[in-house]
Amino acid sequence: MEQLRMRFNAFLDQNAFDIHPDTLARPVRHILASGGKRFRPLLLLAAMRAFDENWEKGMAAAAAIEFFHNFTLLHDDIMDEATTRRGQPAAHRLFGTNRAILSGDAMLIKSYQWLESYRTHPSFGAVLQTFSQTAMDVCRGQQMDMDFETQNDVSTAQYLEMIRLKTAVLLGAALKIGALLAQAPSHAADNLFDFGIQAGMAFQIQDDILDSFGDKDQVGKRIGGDIVQNKKTYLLLRCIENTPAPREIHNLLDQRDNPDEKIARIKALMVTSGALDDARNKRDDFLEKSLQSLAKSSIPEPDKQFFAQMARQMAHRTR
Amino acid sequence: MEQLRMRFNAFLDQNAFDIHPDTLARPVRHILASGGKRFRPLLLLAAMRAFDENWEKGMAAAAAIEFFHNFTLLHDDIMDEATTRRGQPAAHRLFGTNRAILSGDAMLIKSYQWLESYRTHPSFGAVLQTFSQTAMDVCRGQQMDMDFETQNDVSTAQYLEMIRLKTAVLLGAALKIGALLAQAPSHAADNLFDFGIQAGMAFQIQDDILDSFGDKDQVGKRIGGDIVQNKKTYLLLRCIENTPAPREIHNLLDQRDNPDEKIARIKALMVTSGALDDARNKRDDFLEKSLQSLAKSSIPEPDKQFFAQMARQMAHRTR
Repeated sequence: MEQLRMRFNAFLDQNAFDIHPDTLARPVRHILASGGKRFRPLLLLAAMRAFDENWEKGMAAAAAIEFFHNFTLLHDDIMDEATTRRGQPAAHRLFGTNRAILSGDAMLIKSYQWLESYRTHPSFGAVLQTFSQTAMDVCRGQQMDMDFETQNDVSTAQYLEMIRLKTAVLLGAALKIGALLAQAPSHAADNLFDFGIQAGMAFQIQDDILDSFGDKDQVGKRIGGDIVQNKKTYLLLRCIENTPAPREIHNLLDQRDNPDEKIARIKALMVTSGALDDARNKRDDFLEKSLQSLAKSSIPEPDKQFFAQMARQMAHRTR
Repeated sequence: MEQLRMRFNAFLDQNAFDIHPDTLARPVRHILASGGKRFRPLLLLAAMRAFDENWEKGMAAAAAIEFFHNFTLLHDDIMDEATTRRGQPAAHRLFGTNRAILSGDAMLIKSYQWLESYRTHPSFGAVLQTFSQTAMDVCRGQQMDMDFETQNDVSTAQYLEMIRLKTAVLLGAALKIGALLAQAPSHAADNLFDFGIQAGMAFQIQDDILDSFGDKDQVGKRIGGDIVQNKKTYLLLRCIENTPAPREIHNLLDQRDNPDEKIARIKALMVTSGALDDARNKRDDFLEKSLQSLAKSSIPEPDKQFFAQMARQMAHRTR
């Protein structure tokens, strides 16, 4: 996996985002250089590699997926008023909100330009449709996430639908686009898509767990941000469902003046109510389902092992 | 022209933007319903009609161009802190900045989805490339425009390059995409593209003139917004170049506390320095050049007359 990541990063370095005026390009280079785990482009390249030895032809599509993902980070960080991203100042704090909006727009357009390099490929139409529908789903998920902030009756089912749209479909789409570009059989593309969706659900629940229970230095941001913002995470929703004293939680949610105390007390309730255990179990259920979808796919054994390792890493990552 | 506009508006009405959650769709419907002159989609449809009697097949591409244009308005209004648009509250004032950002993103993605309906068309690749490159140019122009705010040595040449990118290329691209979808000869597509660029330059200079010298009720927003924001328009740059007393202008630009006086005094200088006349002349030069490009194109005479009428209307509009 490390080798694939190095190859992809080398491709990004060789194709640095360089455009006039440079004020538009700098926030793009900033967020790309801040790293990240590159899970999405690696999934795409690995899916392609499972069916086509010329998998390096997928680099531009992998870049499209990574540009798209980083576009969403630029805009989400504005909406969430995030101060840091990957241990560094969020782009809108460094460059201002206007440039972060516009650079995000440019990244979204550039992701389509990466895909346009496949315009003579037989799967071009299908790739583009998958990409656009996924992109719209991600926006829908982000809107649901924002709507939840002022909605007091969010169910865990609604939450799971939100993270499917906001996070999981992009992982599934990365795999499907890799399979489409390799002209894999459609059932294999569908199995990989399902695998990606389930692994993405596990990934996002782990993300929520890390936001409240991770290690600050490893996660690269302040712990408890979701709690301070009253984000309706699986952890919080389960905590509200499980607790014998819901009034105490709602009082804590209304509290605005002592964030550290709020974080500590809600985390304690998440532990004692069993919400943390429930979230871990739910995460592992999704991981298990992803491995079942993977088992059904007809890809070679070494590729299966590679994907299984990735799913486990996404579900159990600590940073 | 009115008939074409009605047909296009009927198409938009029949294909209302309807997506879950509705909180994401409402700002989109708001800005589309606020009207506008629909110049860009009409140019596309008229270009198509000049070469293909089945020009109604261009409706989805016309919608793509109009969605893209309205996406830029949603985001630009945030960046410019605009309070109104087309006589109504700007979307970010009605729905909040976050929803205006995200709905804009959704509109940009939807514009690609409109284009994907041509995925089996022989010109699909060329249409998509033209569209994406134009979209990137528009972002570049918007960034230049923002950079100019804090830049004290902007030349009129730089200004003209900025409006070419921010405004004119989209008008040119609308015409070119119409010609591509009609499978017109490439020299005809190029002539129409040039026509659109020149007409777009005239259009934007008229836009600047209206912002300072238009009629509030016709323009649909407060007059003098560019002056208050120290926008480096052709009018202002010419005024600085022409005036024998540049210090007076720079003192006025630094003034923040009495906007009405600032507007009145800068407008007076724009008139006495000859900047207003220069802007009108420059606008009419571009209009003339656009008509020359049009004359060179091989399209039928009634279509030429239609486009000439549109260019004159864009260059001399009062609202």
